[in-house]
Amino acid sequence: MARVSQAHLDARRRQILDGAAVCFARNGFHATSMQDVLKEVDLSAGAVYRYFSGKEELIAAIVSEVLGQVRTSFEEAARLDPPPPPDVLVTEVLGRTLAARASLTVDGKPAFPRLVVQVWTETLRNDELAAILREGYCAVRAAWGRIVEVYQAAGTMRADVPPDHVARTMIAVVLGFLAQQSLFGPAPVEVLGDGLRALMSVSEAEGRPVRSQLG
Amino acid sequence: MARVSQAHLDARRRQILDGAAVCFARNGFHATSMQDVLKEVDLSAGAVYRYFSGKEELIAAIVSEVLGQVRTSFEEAARLDPPPPPDVLVTEVLGRTLAARASLTVDGKPAFPRLVVQVWTETLRNDELAAILREGYCAVRAAWGRIVEVYQAAGTMRADVPPDHVARTMIAVVLGFLAQQSLFGPAPVEVLGDGLRALMSVSEAEGRPVRSQLG
Repeated sequence: MARVSQAHLDARRRQILDGAAVCFARNGFHATSMQDVLKEVDLSAGAVYRYFSGKEELIAAIVSEVLGQVRTSFEEAARLDPPPPPDVLVTEVLGRTLAARASLTVDGKPAFPRLVVQVWTETLRNDELAAILREGYCAVRAAWGRIVEVYQAAGTMRADVPPDHVARTMIAVVLGFLAQQSLFGPAPVEVLGDGLRALMSVSEAEGRPVRSQLG
Repeated sequence: MARVSQAHLDARRRQILDGAAVCFARNGFHATSMQDVLKEVDLSAGAVYRYFSGKEELIAAIVSEVLGQVRTSFEEAARLDPPPPPDVLVTEVLGRTLAARASLTVDGKPAFPRLVVQVWTETLRNDELAAILREGYCAVRAAWGRIVEVYQAAGTMRADVPPDHVARTMIAVVLGFLAQQSLFGPAPVEVLGDGLRALMSVSEAEGRPVRSQLG
């Protein structure tokens, strides 16, 4: 009995989080009311407030869950020997993150990229959310940095670049890919995998000028 | 006389655009009123409305100017033989875009990355702005695609990847770097240059598995 009950509680919690995520993706955190969330999940106030005290707790739970999963993926990858190359790693983690939320849509398009951009904007004025985001970002950045150290130690990546700069760049490409999707429509993660693979293939020309001729 | 007058008109227009950009970066487009803009630029309504009919025209002018400059930079680069390598090109164009707006700040931090994120959110609900952004994005993407074709023809980048996928990836990394800056504070463009250079140095391991061991 107790197990069934816990499964039910978990499913209900999931339902509320997903409904809130769709609301926040659609209209942004600021313009979404708890009434909107109740309507979206089709539950009573009592049923929802049993799990979450309000919007702040909902957005915190949503953001923490995503960041926690991404962080775990990269921490796992950092322990592999050798870790997957950058294009494979990025594509796998992003693909998994998007696939887990593929059923959440706004106007027939994936809600997740749109949610990400809405969360960023809210973060600019919400210190609590900013703290959650910063903590998750720092953890992912640290895990990426450790993976870069392994690449460098194995000689598969030049070692004269600070690992943290590579970590920031790898995170940037994923964030930007999500921004593109929210603004210009969905694209398969293979696009990003191809782009990274091509970048990894660039050979530096002999006698390459330090500065280009660009005006 | 006429020249001085045109210079004065241009300077006044610049002043209004910069003030509006700071307002939009600070609070977002939606929450900014024309009163806020007038206060920021310290001009009368008559003086401002002589140049812009309202918020919509202001944001359109700001976004068009940025996209136009970025587009020109990449179109220039596409005509160079050889074009600068990806890390140099990205760093130069982004560095120039940020430097031109370095005097615009919100809470002592560069306003531009914050403005970019605010514009994205507004784009999600503003079809007119979405159309402007999409046009500029497509033009930059096309110019980047032509540069990739040159790399591939010269044999400095693998040729089995669609140029457009590389273009989208290169744009993604810049958008994501701007998002990072708005969320977690300023970072020199050299961070991104380092990261791209490191990625360009990755050597593919022999017998590399198509899929990693990641769970």
